Amino acid sequence: MYINRFLSPVIVYFYSWRMVLFSLFTGSTAILLYDYLGWQWVAIPWLPVSLIGTATAFFVGFKNNQSYDRSWEARKVWGAIVNNSRSFATAVRSFTTCSPDVEIESAAAENRIIIYRHLAWLYALKKAMAQRTSWEHKDRASERQRKALQRAQAPCEVEIAKYLPAAEHELIQGKNNQATQILDLQSQHIRNLRRAGALDAYQHVALQNLIAALYDEQGKSERIKNTPFPRQYATTSTLFIFVFMTLLPFGLLPQFVDLGEKFMFLLIPFNMIVSWVFMFMEYVGDISENPFEGLLNDIPISTIIRNIEIDLKEMLDEKDLPEKLKNYAGTVY
Amino acid sequence: MYINRFLSPVIVYFYSWRMVLFSLFTGSTAILLYDYLGWQWVAIPWLPVSLIGTATAFFVGFKNNQSYDRSWEARKVWGAIVNNSRSFATAVRSFTTCSPDVEIESAAAENRIIIYRHLAWLYALKKAMAQRTSWEHKDRASERQRKALQRAQAPCEVEIAKYLPAAEHELIQGKNNQATQILDLQSQHIRNLRRAGALDAYQHVALQNLIAALYDEQGKSERIKNTPFPRQYATTSTLFIFVFMTLLPFGLLPQFVDLGEKFMFLLIPFNMIVSWVFMFMEYVGDISENPFEGLLNDIPISTIIRNIEIDLKEMLDEKDLPEKLKNYAGTVY
Amino acid sequence: MYINRFLSPVIVYFYSWRMVLFSLFTGSTAILLYDYLGWQWVAIPWLPVSLIGTATAFFVGFKNNQSYDRSWEARKVWGAIVNNSRSFATAVRSFTTCSPDVEIESAAAENRIIIYRHLAWLYALKKAMAQRTSWEHKDRASERQRKALQRAQAPCEVEIAKYLPAAEHELIQGKNNQATQILDLQSQHIRNLRRAGALDAYQHVALQNLIAALYDEQGKSERIKNTPFPRQYATTSTLFIFVFMTLLPFGLLPQFVDLGEKFMFLLIPFNMIVSWVFMFMEYVGDISENPFEGLLNDIPISTIIRNIEIDLKEMLDEKDLPEKLKNYAGTVY
Amino acid sequence: MYINRFLSPVIVYFYSWRMVLFSLFTGSTAILLYDYLGWQWVAIPWLPVSLIGTATAFFVGFKNNQSYDRSWEARKVWGAIVNNSRSFATAVRSFTTCSPDVEIESAAAENRIIIYRHLAWLYALKKAMAQRTSWEHKDRASERQRKALQRAQAPCEVEIAKYLPAAEHELIQGKNNQATQILDLQSQHIRNLRRAGALDAYQHVALQNLIAALYDEQGKSERIKNTPFPRQYATTSTLFIFVFMTLLPFGLLPQFVDLGEKFMFLLIPFNMIVSWVFMFMEYVGDISENPFEGLLNDIPISTIIRNIEIDLKEMLDEKDLPEKLKNYAGTVY
Amino acid sequence: MYINRFLSPVIVYFYSWRMVLFSLFTGSTAILLYDYLGWQWVAIPWLPVSLIGTATAFFVGFKNNQSYDRSWEARKVWGAIVNNSRSFATAVRSFTTCSPDVEIESAAAENRIIIYRHLAWLYALKKAMAQRTSWEHKDRASERQRKALQRAQAPCEVEIAKYLPAAEHELIQGKNNQATQILDLQSQHIRNLRRAGALDAYQHVALQNLIAALYDEQGKSERIKNTPFPRQYATTSTLFIFVFMTLLPFGLLPQFVDLGEKFMFLLIPFNMIVSWVFMFMEYVGDISENPFEGLLNDIPISTIIRNIEIDLKEMLDEKDLPEKLKNYAGTVY
Repeated sequence: MYINRFLSPVIVYFYSWRMVLFSLFTGSTAILLYDYLGWQWVAIPWLPVSLIGTATAFFVGFKNNQSYDRSWEARKVWGAIVNNSRSFATAVRSFTTCSPDVEIESAAAENRIIIYRHLAWLYALKKAMAQRTSWEHKDRASERQRKALQRAQAPCEVEIAKYLPAAEHELIQGKNNQATQILDLQSQHIRNLRRAGALDAYQHVALQNLIAALYDEQGKSERIKNTPFPRQYATTSTLFIFVFMTLLPFGLLPQFVDLGEKFMFLLIPFNMIVSWVFMFMEYVGDISENPFEGLLNDIPISTIIRNIEIDLKEMLDEKDLPEKLKNYAGTVY
Repeated sequence: MYINRFLSPVIVYFYSWRMVLFSLFTGSTAILLYDYLGWQWVAIPWLPVSLIGTATAFFVGFKNNQSYDRSWEARKVWGAIVNNSRSFATAVRSFTTCSPDVEIESAAAENRIIIYRHLAWLYALKKAMAQRTSWEHKDRASERQRKALQRAQAPCEVEIAKYLPAAEHELIQGKNNQATQILDLQSQHIRNLRRAGALDAYQHVALQNLIAALYDEQGKSERIKNTPFPRQYATTSTLFIFVFMTLLPFGLLPQFVDLGEKFMFLLIPFNMIVSWVFMFMEYVGDISENPFEGLLNDIPISTIIRNIEIDLKEMLDEKDLPEKLKNYAGTVY
Repeated sequence: MYINRFLSPVIVYFYSWRMVLFSLFTGSTAILLYDYLGWQWVAIPWLPVSLIGTATAFFVGFKNNQSYDRSWEARKVWGAIVNNSRSFATAVRSFTTCSPDVEIESAAAENRIIIYRHLAWLYALKKAMAQRTSWEHKDRASERQRKALQRAQAPCEVEIAKYLPAAEHELIQGKNNQATQILDLQSQHIRNLRRAGALDAYQHVALQNLIAALYDEQGKSERIKNTPFPRQYATTSTLFIFVFMTLLPFGLLPQFVDLGEKFMFLLIPFNMIVSWVFMFMEYVGDISENPFEGLLNDIPISTIIRNIEIDLKEMLDEKDLPEKLKNYAGTVY
Repeated sequence: MYINRFLSPVIVYFYSWRMVLFSLFTGSTAILLYDYLGWQWVAIPWLPVSLIGTATAFFVGFKNNQSYDRSWEARKVWGAIVNNSRSFATAVRSFTTCSPDVEIESAAAENRIIIYRHLAWLYALKKAMAQRTSWEHKDRASERQRKALQRAQAPCEVEIAKYLPAAEHELIQGKNNQATQILDLQSQHIRNLRRAGALDAYQHVALQNLIAALYDEQGKSERIKNTPFPRQYATTSTLFIFVFMTLLPFGLLPQFVDLGEKFMFLLIPFNMIVSWVFMFMEYVGDISENPFEGLLNDIPISTIIRNIEIDLKEMLDEKDLPEKLKNYAGTVY
Repeated sequence: MYINRFLSPVIVYFYSWRMVLFSLFTGSTAILLYDYLGWQWVAIPWLPVSLIGTATAFFVGFKNNQSYDRSWEARKVWGAIVNNSRSFATAVRSFTTCSPDVEIESAAAENRIIIYRHLAWLYALKKAMAQRTSWEHKDRASERQRKALQRAQAPCEVEIAKYLPAAEHELIQGKNNQATQILDLQSQHIRNLRRAGALDAYQHVALQNLIAALYDEQGKSERIKNTPFPRQYATTSTLFIFVFMTLLPFGLLPQFVDLGEKFMFLLIPFNMIVSWVFMFMEYVGDISENPFEGLLNDIPISTIIRNIEIDLKEMLDEKDLPEKLKNYAGTVY
C-alpha cells in the first residue's frame, strides 16, 4: 500500500513508458501513412472510434470500480482479523483465569501457547496469500518489486516455527491447508482445557465460536486470493482499449489535417496524451485487481500481522517486542 | 472459472464468430442498397441511431454489472460453505470429546459418520446446482462444453452413496430436496448424541445453530440458481442491441459516403468492429449471468467441494485423500 | 416471475402497443405541421431536446436500478424465510425429543401442530402480501393477468384454516395483523412446552430467537410491500419521459427534412422506434417496482411457500404431499 | 410518505413555480440583451455551458442517489424497530411466564408495564426525531405543510405520559436523551425480575440482548437524523445548478437565432422547459434528503408507531385499541 | 462536520481562490499566444480535450463517490460506538446487580469504575484518530483550521487521566495501542468480578462479547484512519484534472475566436468558470476523503464522545455533567 499523498513520478514513469512508446508509434504511423504515403483514406470518420470509446469507457470504469471493491473488501477482511485476534486473545485470558481455584500465573503459561499458536496461524495464512496464481502480474518490473519487498521480511516458515510447538510444527508439514489445521489444533487445545475443567461448558462454546469467526475471515481472504477478477471482463477491457488506441490516431487525423500540413504533426503529442490517459486509467484498475500479489498496491498484511504480534505480546506483558515494520520507498507491505 | 490472465483466442473466437457474420451481412447490405441499388435514403441521420445506442448502453451496462454481482454473490455463498464446513467439523469433534469420561478414539468413529454425511450434503447440493433451468444456455457449443467439463468428474450420485450410510441413502431417494433432508438427518443424529448424554444442552444448541447456518447457505445457493436475472431486463438488453446493430451501418453510411465511392466500402470492416465490440460487451454479461450452469464462467463448486473433502479428511487424520481437481483447458470447474 | 429465456412476443406486444400508437401520433403530427401546414418553426433545435433526454435518462436509469434492487431484496427476504423455516422445523423436532425421557413418537404429534402453525403463518403472510395498495398497477390488462394467476391457487384463507387448530383460527379473526399474532401463538406454545418441562431453558431461548428471526423476515417483507418506490422519483421519471417523447419528433425534424421532402416521412417510423425504446426502458422499471403486486414480475411466493410445505411435510414423513405448483404461461407465481 | 401512484399536480406546482419564474426571467433577459440591446456577443458558444452541465449532472445525480439511500436506510431502521418491538414483546411475555410456578395472569400485569414502557420509548424516539436541525427546510410552504401534518397527531409528550408510570415520567424529565434513559429503565426492570427470580440467568441475558438491539436501532435513527447529507456536496450541487441555469439561455441563443428573428422568442418557453427539468431533478434530491423533517417525503414514523401500538395491545388482548392513522391528502406521516 | 444548510461563502472562497488564479493564468496565456504572438495553431481541436475530459470525469466522479462512502462508513462506525457504549453500560449495571445478595449501592461504585474506564477508552481512541498521517492535508489553511478546532477541546491525555485509576493510567503509558490495552483491562476487571462471584458464567461471556463488539468498532475506525483512499486512484484524478485544465483554454479557443477579436477575451471568464467548476468538483472529493483529519468535514467524534459521556453519567445519576460541545463557526467537531 502506497502511503505518500501523491504517487512518486518514478512510479508513474514505470507504469507509463511502455504505453507512451506504443502511442508515439501509432501516432507517427498515422501521420506517415497520410502525409508521406498519401493514403488519405486512413483519416477515418470519428464516429466509429467514438462508439468503441464508449464501450471501452464502460469496461474500464467497471474494472476500476470492481478492483477498488476487491481491495477494500480484502482490507476489511484483514481488519476483521485484527479485531478477532484481539477478542480471541482477551477472551482466552479472561476465561481460563476466571475460576477462583485457578492461579493466574500458571494459567498464563497455557495461554501463551494458545496465543503464540494464533500468531503462527497468522503467518500460515500470510504464506498462503503469498502463493503466486496464474492471473497475477509476472512481468520483470513486478518481479523486481516483489523481490525488493520480500527481502525486508523474515520468511513465514521461520515465524511459524518460532510460534508453534515443535511437535505441532511437524504435524502440519505436508498438510494441504496449514492455517485450517492450526485452527483445528486450537480447537483441540481448548477442548483439552474443557476436559481438564479449566473452562466451563459455556466458555468452551464461546471460544469455539471465536474459532469459527477466524475460519470465516481466513476463508474470505482465501476466496479473494483464489478467485480472479472474472477474466471475461478483464480480457475484454484490455482488448477494447487496444482496439480503441489503435484506431484513435486515425480518427483524430481529420481534425489535425484541418490545422494545415505545417501543424498536422501536433497529432503525435496529442494522440500520446490521450492514449496515455486512457491506458493509464485501465492500468490503474489492472494493478489494483489482486490485493495479495506482493506488489505496491497490496493490502499490507505483513504490517498488519506485526501490529497484532505487538498488541498480543503487550497483553502478555512481554518485554521483548518485535519492531514495527518500516515503509519501503513509501510503501507499506 | 477461467483462470489464465487472458481469455484464449479460441474462446474469444467461439464467442464472436456468429456476431461477426451478422455484422458483415448488415454492413454489406447497407453498401449494396446505397451504392448498387442507389437507395440513397438508406443513409439515415445518425441522431436516432445514437439515441437507441444510449438506451442500449444503459441496459447492457446494467446487465454486465448485475451479472457480475450475481456471480460474486454466488462465490461468497460457496466461500461461506467452506468456512461453515470447517467450523462444523471442528466443533463436532471438539464438543463430542470434551467430557473427561469420553474416550477420544471411540468418539472419533461417531464423528466420522457425521463428517461424511456432511460431505454427502455437499454433493447433494452440487447435484441440485447441476439441474438445467429454462433460462440457461442450451446452444450446441454450450452443451459440448458442459459435457467436456462433466466428463472430468465422478457423478454426484456416486459420491453421495459413498459418504452416506446405506439406510440413509435409501431414505433420501425420492425426497423432493435431498440436501434439506440430509441436514435434517444431521440434526437427528446430534439429537441422539444429546439423548445419549454425549453432548450437553449448550453444545446441542450450538451445533443446531451451525446446521441453521448451513441451511442458510444452501438456501442462498438455491435462490441464485432458481431465480433468473429478471427476463424483462435481459430480453430488453438483447432486443435493443439487435435493433441498434441493424440500424448501425445505415447510420454510419453518411460518414463513409463522404470518403468517396472508392473508400465507401470501408464501412464494412468498421461496422464489423463496432458491432463486434457492442455485441461482445452484451455477450460478456450474458455468459456471466448464471453462476451454476456448468460452463466456463461458473463458480467452481466441484473444486471447492473437493478442497473441503481434503481439509475435513485431513482433520480426521485419514491418509487416503482424494486428489485435487485439475484444470481443464484453463478452466477450474 | 417469468422464466423463459426470452419474454414472449405477446408480452412485449402487450407492454408496447399503447406507446407505439402514441409515438405514431406525435410523429405524424410533426410531419403534418411542418409539411402540410408549413409551420417550419416546429423544426426546433435539437439541443434543448437532448438536454431533456439526459435528465430523462438519469431518472429512468435510476428507476430501473432501484426497481431491480427492490425485487432482489424481496427475493432475498423470501429466501431467508425458506431457510428459517427449515431451521425452525428441524430445531423444534430436535429440541423436543432430545431428552432421554421423551418418547419420540408422542413428541412428534406436538411438533406437527407447531410446524402446521408455521405453514399457516406463511399463508397469513402471503395473504398480507396480496392486499392491493394505491400505487400498484390497476389497468385492465394487469387486473386480467392478476385474476388469471390467482385462479390457479387455493385462497389463503382456506390454507390457513387447514393448518391452524380451529380455536386459534377463530382467535386471529379480526386481528389487525394475523401473521404477527400467529407467531405470538408459536411463542406461547413453546412457552407451554417449557412450563411442561419438555424444553430446557436454553432451548427455549434458542427457539424464541428463531421466532425473532421469522419476525424479522416478516417485517422486511411488509416493509417492501407497504413502502412504494418514492413517488417523487417515479412521477418525475414518467413526467420527463412524456415531455421528452412529445418534443422528440420536433427535434428530429431538421435531420429528416435534410433527406428531402420525399423521404421526410421516414421520421415517422424512426420516431416510433426511438420512442418505443425509451418508453419500453421506462416501462421495464415500472413493472419491476412492486415485487408483490400479483403480476408477471412478482417474487413467486406461492411457489416458494408450496416448496416449504413439501420440505416440512417430508421432514414429518408425511406421505400425502401437496403438488408442486405448475408454471402458468411461462410464469412462476 | 406520499402514496398515490402519481404526485398530485398541486404538489408539482408548489415545487415548481419559483423555478419557472426564475427561468422565464433568465430567458427573457437573454432575448432582451441580444435583440433589443443588440449585444450579439451574449450568444456565447455552447461548449463551456455543456461542460458545466456535465459537472452539474454528476452532482445532481449523486445527490439524488444518496438522498434515496438515506431514505431507504431510515426506512429499514424503522422496519427493524417494528420487528424488534414484536420480538421484544413476545419474548417478555414468553420468558416471564415459562416457569410452572408462575400464574400467567399475575405475570401479565407486570408485562403490561414493560410493554407500555416500550411504547413510551417509541414516542420518546419520535419526539427526538421531530426536533428541527439547521439544515432542514424552513421556507414558508414547508412550515405550513409541517404544521398541517402535526395537527393530525397527539403530542408525543401526551403519549409518553400515558404509557409511563408517573414516577418514571418525572425521572426522565430534564434528561438529555429520554429514549436512552427509558431503555435503561427497561434494563433495570428486567434486572429486578431476575432478582425476584422471575427470570433465569439465561433469559435475563437474552432480554438484555434485545434491549441492545433496540439501542442499535435508536442510535441508527439518531445518526441519520443528526448527520446531514454532507453540505460540501449539497451546496456544490445547488451552486452548479444555478451557474448552469444562468448560462443556459445564453448558450441556447445561437441555436434559436438561427430560426430567424420571428421565432427567436421560442427560446423563452424552451429555456423554461429545460430549466424546469434540471431544477426539478435537483429539487427531487433536495426534498428527499432528510427522512425525518416532518414533511411530505418523510418516513411515516407516526403510522409505524401506531401500528406497533395496535399489534402489541392485541398481543395483550386489550380491547380498546387506538385507531389506525388516516392519510392526509395522499400522505402517510 | 459543517451543519449549516449552505457552505458559507468564506469557505467556498478559501477552497477556490487558488484554482481561480490558476485558470485566469491559463486563459490569459491562451489569448496571449493566439492573439498577440499570433500562434494560431494553439487553437487545438476540441476532440482530444473532450476525450481527456471524459476520463477525468470518470476519475473525479469515482473519487467523490468513494470519499462519501468512506465518510459515511466512518460515521456508521462511530454510531455503532454510541450504541455499544449504551448497551455496555446498561448491561454492566444490570448484570452486576441482579443477584438478590448484592446491595445495589455498593455494586454501583464498582460499575462506576468500569464505565469511567469505558470513557477513557473513548478518549484513547480519539487520541489515536488525531495522529497525522502522510496523506492528510498539510497546507497552511488546513493547519490553521485544525488548530482552531483543537483549541476548543481539552487534550485527550487529560480526559484519559481523569477517567482511569492512576495505576492503570501509568500501566498503559508507552503501550503501543492504548485503546486495545484499556479494553483488555476491562476484560480483566470483569474476569475479577466473575472470580469474586459477582457475575455468573453466562453474564461473563455476554460482557466479553460486548467487549469483542467494542474491539470490532475500534478496529474499523483504525482501518479507515490508517488506510488512505488508494493513492493510485487519487493521484490519477489530480493528474488528469491538471492535464485537462491546462488544455482546456486552448481547446475552447476555436469557439471564442469565432466571436471575433473584440469578444475573444470572453474566453478568460468562461475558461475560469468551467475550470473552477471542474476543480471544485475534484476538490470536494479531496476534502471528504479522510474522515478523521481534524478539519471541517470530519466525523465529529469529539461531540459524539461528549454525548456518550453525558448519557452514561446520567445513567449513573451523576449531577455534575460536562457541557455539550458548541459549534465552531458552523462546524461540529
